[in-house]
Amino acid sequence: MAQKPVSSTVIRRLPKYYRHLTSLREIGISNISSKDLAKRMNITASQVKQDFSTFGCYGLQGYGYDVDFLHDRIGEILGLDTTRHMIIIGAGSLGHALARHTEFEKRGFKVIGIFDTRSELIGEEIGNLKIRHFDTITEFLAQNKVDIAALAVPENHAKRVVEYITGLGIKAIWNFVPMKLITDNDVTVENIHLIDSLLVLGCQIQDKTKKI
Amino acid sequence: MAQKPVSSTVIRRLPKYYRHLTSLREIGISNISSKDLAKRMNITASQVKQDFSTFGCYGLQGYGYDVDFLHDRIGEILGLDTTRHMIIIGAGSLGHALARHTEFEKRGFKVIGIFDTRSELIGEEIGNLKIRHFDTITEFLAQNKVDIAALAVPENHAKRVVEYITGLGIKAIWNFVPMKLITDNDVTVENIHLIDSLLVLGCQIQDKTKKI
Repeated sequence: MAQKPVSSTVIRRLPKYYRHLTSLREIGISNISSKDLAKRMNITASQVKQDFSTFGCYGLQGYGYDVDFLHDRIGEILGLDTTRHMIIIGAGSLGHALARHTEFEKRGFKVIGIFDTRSELIGEEIGNLKIRHFDTITEFLAQNKVDIAALAVPENHAKRVVEYITGLGIKAIWNFVPMKLITDNDVTVENIHLIDSLLVLGCQIQDKTKKI
Repeated sequence: MAQKPVSSTVIRRLPKYYRHLTSLREIGISNISSKDLAKRMNITASQVKQDFSTFGCYGLQGYGYDVDFLHDRIGEILGLDTTRHMIIIGAGSLGHALARHTEFEKRGFKVIGIFDTRSELIGEEIGNLKIRHFDTITEFLAQNKVDIAALAVPENHAKRVVEYITGLGIKAIWNFVPMKLITDNDVTVENIHLIDSLLVLGCQIQDKTKKI
């Protein structure tokens, strides 16, 4: 069946919907109204209805949405049944943490390589991975299917690394470097800017203090 | 001077503005139009003008905004001149990475403690921090001013830990646990949901593949 692609703003809410639907299932709730789900999600009921209608899910008057059906449908859109291969570029503390994070594999994201340029790190084992030299990445990418590269390098290396790996065919970057990456249009970038998030938090507590 | 508090949606864009203004300063640009800044930020010029007007910054016809002034004003709103004390709850791989992240201190966020309950971790040194037992946190909070608690514990511990630390007066939580934290209204929570972000990325590459 041909499907309209789900818009990226809706996609951005899907993991949160999925998380709430998983909790609902766990406590044995089989159906839920858009109003109740909206309340859990801190959005409006009409937003919920609109989001779900974009991928063909409609609630029934007096019953709402079927939790199991919606859960599975969203899981399918999120591609939770697919295994994706990820590599990590940069084996500093953040790269280490990403390599050790067991939740990723549970959700279908398997880390198959980690790279750095610092000779003292090469060969070090993190779980069942060995840190490889970045110079060997061309060979690695020729031999392994890689869907996502997580970027955890220092800011001054980021531009060069991104040019290099996208030149080798990497199409999706999970970016932990606090800067905007310039890439071709066919490369998808998803940013985690830790410092930005911390600054927002700092600013919000400052505001609260001022109000008192 | 009494000031209107800056709205949280505007606050959320401030770190990004600050980053772009820092880059502009570095390359010696002293003034910029809302249009050019908007282009760098991937938003509209009217959004830029509206955002800046909320904290009393207006551009001049034919000149635009003064980069230095705007940079310093936003830095001031973000509280970059203030030092905040942060503790980390959970000394797993993510907690370790957060404790080792040198960028936080550069931006005024000083990690002064890290806690866990696993006896094999207690006493381990990370930089100049020693992992402390979570049982000692009451005493620690009585003796130290703590502004932010970064939460990097397993999901099944999160609820209990949050109840406990907010009961001890913690008012700001930087949450790395992939769940919605239930807190009192006077507690500010800022979420980093790594798995959500990865799922969004996975979903977007899947969509692109389908379109081809």
